Amino acid sequence: MVPDSLPPNTTVADVGERIMVARIVSACGSPPEVPTSTALVGPGDDAAVIRAEDGRVVVTTDMAVEGRHFRRDWSQAVDIGHRVAAANCADIAAMGAVPTGLVVALGLPDSIEVAWVEQLMSGLVAEAARAGASVIGGDVTAADSVVVSVAALGTLEGREPVLRTGARAGDVVAVAGRLGWAAAGLAVLSRGFRSPRALVDAHRRPQPSYAAGVAAARNGAHALMDVSDGLLIDAGRLALASGVGIDIDSASLIVDEPIASAAAAYNLDPLQWILGGGDDHALLAVFAPDAQIPEPFVPIGRVIDAVEQQVQPGEVRVDGRIPEVAAGFEHFRR
Amino acid sequence: MVPDSLPPNTTVADVGERIMVARIVSACGSPPEVPTSTALVGPGDDAAVIRAEDGRVVVTTDMAVEGRHFRRDWSQAVDIGHRVAAANCADIAAMGAVPTGLVVALGLPDSIEVAWVEQLMSGLVAEAARAGASVIGGDVTAADSVVVSVAALGTLEGREPVLRTGARAGDVVAVAGRLGWAAAGLAVLSRGFRSPRALVDAHRRPQPSYAAGVAAARNGAHALMDVSDGLLIDAGRLALASGVGIDIDSASLIVDEPIASAAAAYNLDPLQWILGGGDDHALLAVFAPDAQIPEPFVPIGRVIDAVEQQVQPGEVRVDGRIPEVAAGFEHFRR
Repeated sequence: MVPDSLPPNTTVADVGERIMVARIVSACGSPPEVPTSTALVGPGDDAAVIRAEDGRVVVTTDMAVEGRHFRRDWSQAVDIGHRVAAANCADIAAMGAVPTGLVVALGLPDSIEVAWVEQLMSGLVAEAARAGASVIGGDVTAADSVVVSVAALGTLEGREPVLRTGARAGDVVAVAGRLGWAAAGLAVLSRGFRSPRALVDAHRRPQPSYAAGVAAARNGAHALMDVSDGLLIDAGRLALASGVGIDIDSASLIVDEPIASAAAAYNLDPLQWILGGGDDHALLAVFAPDAQIPEPFVPIGRVIDAVEQQVQPGEVRVDGRIPEVAAGFEHFRR
Repeated sequence: MVPDSLPPNTTVADVGERIMVARIVSACGSPPEVPTSTALVGPGDDAAVIRAEDGRVVVTTDMAVEGRHFRRDWSQAVDIGHRVAAANCADIAAMGAVPTGLVVALGLPDSIEVAWVEQLMSGLVAEAARAGASVIGGDVTAADSVVVSVAALGTLEGREPVLRTGARAGDVVAVAGRLGWAAAGLAVLSRGFRSPRALVDAHRRPQPSYAAGVAAARNGAHALMDVSDGLLIDAGRLALASGVGIDIDSASLIVDEPIASAAAAYNLDPLQWILGGGDDHALLAVFAPDAQIPEPFVPIGRVIDAVEQQVQPGEVRVDGRIPEVAAGFEHFRR
């Protein structure tokens, strides 16, 4: 069923909940009674049903709030959809799993245009598809500002999940994906600019490597996580969960050209973004010293013994020293 | 790990994200590395892992927004937790499934007290436990008002899901659980009162019968759904999905004493609440004429052939006539 075309600027309040839901379900693709490759029951019933062939399901949730995670004047609806889906699917990949299905809960002000919501859904559906998943259900409710809350499911395909707890002293720390691009893009937008375009695009629509999570698991990664709040803060979380320290070799951190030029323009240290910036959803993995490190992971440091090296468990050093840049993003920071 | 006690009135902003998350994880029960009966990996890693023994998982999501679904001066945090978990678990039960795990995304203003969040979590955890599930993961973010977005997973235990699409002319329509209590309780609160207490409590903390969903599935229900927006509107959705009409016998709708007395006090028709009120999360089921209708379902009407009876598919009648009361709750209604 293709939705009827609406006059431009038609709002959610103009059409009401029933029609808005019907258009959202339509944006998800197939109707509920038609099974897809993964979804046995899709959107439109009380709940969806999805395959979990190895008898387990991986599940995560990530909420994005207007004015905190995105601004409607800085990002298009389709980009916001991509971004929220990417944050969720990256968490599934960070267990060594493959995303299968997303459910989407939307809080919408009355004044939001129907077309905006449909664009948001198209971004969610497209990014889910990039990760191998479909949007299988959701909820719509009124709210004062836009809230997009997604839960993603995934399959381990028979493998064991890769947790944050398995790093051991001597292991190699490696990263797959960009670091600092999204943070640099946000800095550009915050200063009222729209270029370098590559950085702004990276903020608007991160492109995590979902396949890297499976590759890390297949190559026996000891630990794996998603870098969503910044390399230093997230490496610290992994180190704390494993009871170890981490030492990052700054020479191994590639300063890509757009980051170098934006940093030069604003007279900033590019490492501020690379070590402290989140939202690119790179994957951080830890491998045994003799493991083959799979593409696209790049070694960036070593796991260190907390007792032997006299560091606190969870401490992250750069070139053996406590880094001077801000650690990363934290909500509720005063 | 038992969290340290905090001074009264300590806010989310006082402790910061890291400690707030640690206290939320602690409120969920066991740490991530300790598997429970259902959760192979619990809260604290990038994602949780939960059993799905029959190779499928049922999933739903439901978002509650402060000022729209609850008011912090009308409901305690623990009640709000119960209510949001109940809305989600009822959707799982409405597929004929059993809830197994919940993930919880919270949007929190800086000024919210840590103790309030912990009470919210304790309500979520307790209601999930009542339904047989545990809270296995989540996300915390800053927001201007409280948003609680839950996704619930469930198991069909090898059964087929019961959809909304299977109602046939001649089938018996039945309901399990209360109708109108939560709506009457909201009406009481809206008028500035706190009694009848039973109605106010029903609004604050609905008590759906999760077991009724499984019972309906085991007894071969043709269709099943959760009544969350009101009997008329939800029966209409089921009828529309099945391409039939429904005729409700008003004599079969029990007007419980607290509803009768509140309606008398406000000079209202109690059927307004019983037919139009949602949020009790009763289950609406449709059975073949010769099926055994399981406890606690009570027959309330019949499925009618849309063509033969000259009604629109999806039309719900009461005693053969188009009802005069409001249909039920819809977001974005102008």
